[in-house]
Amino acid sequence: MQIACVLYRPLTSLDLIGAYQVFAAWPGATVELVSDTRDVVMDDVGVMSFTPTATFAEVTAPDVVLLPGSSRPFASLGDETLLAWLRAVEPTAKWMTSVCSGAGLLAAAGLITGRKCATHWAYREVVAGMGAEVLAERYVFDGKFVTGGGVTAGIDMALALTAREFGDTQAKVLQLGMEYDPKPPFPGGSLETSEPEIVEAALASLVAGAG
Amino acid sequence: MQIACVLYRPLTSLDLIGAYQVFAAWPGATVELVSDTRDVVMDDVGVMSFTPTATFAEVTAPDVVLLPGSSRPFASLGDETLLAWLRAVEPTAKWMTSVCSGAGLLAAAGLITGRKCATHWAYREVVAGMGAEVLAERYVFDGKFVTGGGVTAGIDMALALTAREFGDTQAKVLQLGMEYDPKPPFPGGSLETSEPEIVEAALASLVAGAG
Repeated sequence: MQIACVLYRPLTSLDLIGAYQVFAAWPGATVELVSDTRDVVMDDVGVMSFTPTATFAEVTAPDVVLLPGSSRPFASLGDETLLAWLRAVEPTAKWMTSVCSGAGLLAAAGLITGRKCATHWAYREVVAGMGAEVLAERYVFDGKFVTGGGVTAGIDMALALTAREFGDTQAKVLQLGMEYDPKPPFPGGSLETSEPEIVEAALASLVAGAG
Repeated sequence: MQIACVLYRPLTSLDLIGAYQVFAAWPGATVELVSDTRDVVMDDVGVMSFTPTATFAEVTAPDVVLLPGSSRPFASLGDETLLAWLRAVEPTAKWMTSVCSGAGLLAAAGLITGRKCATHWAYREVVAGMGAEVLAERYVFDGKFVTGGGVTAGIDMALALTAREFGDTQAKVLQLGMEYDPKPPFPGGSLETSEPEIVEAALASLVAGAG
């Protein structure tokens, strides 16, 4: 099973790595880091750079596609090379997955019009404005499209997809291998569970960083 | 505040990135990816390669050190270049942090003898055998040493340290920015909460992969 993790500028590292770590542990998985060229791809912090293992032209029929998000997601919505590749591989892919604002790329490619999806809480209106039905969920399954909420939701999304593909036991084994028994230091962590002043500060910080 | 994330072969990507994503969002943070040379460092999957931004020789007084773990942790316990660097920077560092088997490197360097720490559940006896007191906790504070359990525990550890360093509000804002309101698809995820047959299968898988 070939898994294509998409690298584009400037992705959020944890969006990519949370789901990657799960998918890479799938039985029989071959993982490629796919980008427009072989040039390294810098993350949105400007520190972590990822090296592609293949170009879009070399990966034409992946079984699974993983689209990470970005804290500066708007430029990539006009990346026609990326969008054209998504449209080209979608018909034969078994699963098209995204984390965070990655759902916006599926929407921009016209692949999830009218479909249910999840995305980062601060990006819901953007994705809804592109024709998808955005749910306030940690992850959403709709046909072959499996979309996660913001950043850390990629771990939950990928484990849930593991269960769907390989059964509950395999998913539990991976969950234990990654010691995923989370204990966030505070309640909250989502739009619906955070205090209003925390939401306001987080939005201000995201807007400031979005550039 | 300079944060030094240590790259060594063959680290687990999510151990590194979970805490990195939190630390990189700290006010005034400068993050370096530090390694013995500038050569890329491949992860334990053999797919993700990380590019150092600095060598050990160039980073002599970091404020925070982050040590990721590895699913094949034993070779690094004899990495004298790495251990010597840890011993050299520890006296002036404010926080020495680790994720997963990274605590074993602190122990091998002789820095946490008699101290309390956390590590991956399958690695607890190894670290205890090197003289640390291993607790079955998600993360443990002992002086300047802040150690997390397996893989995903790095996120919780780093958020808890954010609260210690910058206060609860800042930590909650980062937690919401990363949408860290986890919903693992299954109960379990730790040695204490998983069914015996899941523990057995996870151990078998870890041993098979440990090479």
